[in-house]
Amino acid sequence: MPFCLQCGHAANFAIPVGDSRPRLVCPACQFIHYENPKIICGTLCYHQDKILLCKRAIEPRYGYWTLPAGFMENGETMLAGAVRETFEEAQATACNARLYCLFDIAHLGQVHAIYLAKLSDDGYFAAGAESLECALVDDDNINWDTLAFETIRQTIKHYLADKQALIRQGIDANDPSNYPLHQITLGDDTTPSQMATKLSKES
Amino acid sequence: MPFCLQCGHAANFAIPVGDSRPRLVCPACQFIHYENPKIICGTLCYHQDKILLCKRAIEPRYGYWTLPAGFMENGETMLAGAVRETFEEAQATACNARLYCLFDIAHLGQVHAIYLAKLSDDGYFAAGAESLECALVDDDNINWDTLAFETIRQTIKHYLADKQALIRQGIDANDPSNYPLHQITLGDDTTPSQMATKLSKES
Repeated sequence: MPFCLQCGHAANFAIPVGDSRPRLVCPACQFIHYENPKIICGTLCYHQDKILLCKRAIEPRYGYWTLPAGFMENGETMLAGAVRETFEEAQATACNARLYCLFDIAHLGQVHAIYLAKLSDDGYFAAGAESLECALVDDDNINWDTLAFETIRQTIKHYLADKQALIRQGIDANDPSNYPLHQITLGDDTTPSQMATKLSKES
Repeated sequence: MPFCLQCGHAANFAIPVGDSRPRLVCPACQFIHYENPKIICGTLCYHQDKILLCKRAIEPRYGYWTLPAGFMENGETMLAGAVRETFEEAQATACNARLYCLFDIAHLGQVHAIYLAKLSDDGYFAAGAESLECALVDDDNINWDTLAFETIRQTIKHYLADKQALIRQGIDANDPSNYPLHQITLGDDTTPSQMATKLSKES
């Protein structure tokens, strides 16, 4: 049973006055516990035609490979969070970072903001506390079966395709600012017009 | 004094093992209460050269004018949240919505995702529960002194400038998809390279 964060009384789910959704509400002090989506920030860092990957030392997906990413903290921007996570998980410095893939994952209550960045010129990295190991992996040697998450898979796919397209067009594929932003919704196929119709009918 | 959400015991701030930040931690059951940034979703809806504005019926900034926007909920995408807030605050249907201004506000622990949209062809709107009134306001008659928030002011400024630029270039300014995305950081002037340097020194 959950308890009230503010007064410690047993709390339960109820729809607050003027609201339309059940929230955890304290019957003693009326405190409402709001829960909102969380933002995950990370980077795809590349260096000399290789991608920086981390082998997870934590659940979920222990032992699978991922891009450095994690929960955004209060007091930082999404970019700051992405750079921090890259440093924490791979001891690496993400340079020229640019928002690259913005994922909406409604069923998880998450938004993922993955930045495209260059690894610092020295190419330095090392496993951080949440990684078993880190590696720079050739574009051609990505082991897709050992990637931890769908967002990671899609981000890398976009990067490889975008890079080839830039090279074909004679545009500098080594500059993150030449890459487009991808906005991606996972696991929700409601179109905006379907949603507007639904809201109209409910009211 | 805060209490533990999980067991009701008095909780206090401590740095959990393996973490670097103080969190609210329960000394009885060890539950860690994470607090993360929240996402605000909203729209700039336009209709026949007018912008849909809402006069706030709630604090903060009661009585000031805003774009329809509010906290994103679990289970929805940012776009779904923007469309819902537009419906709740202005009873209006946002069409062809497109991510337009993405604000990082580190000191508030917030990310604001404002979509550009067309109001439905019938032009219908009406004050929702959190609005004293709603109005379609001519571009030339925006009262900048009565706008509630800096994010609202900047979004409208960008819209007016982008619209004029599109018209000058002979591009359809009535189609939201012709507008660029603006990524804006408010109240934090740390550059990515400064941040990377800071992280290196701290480690």
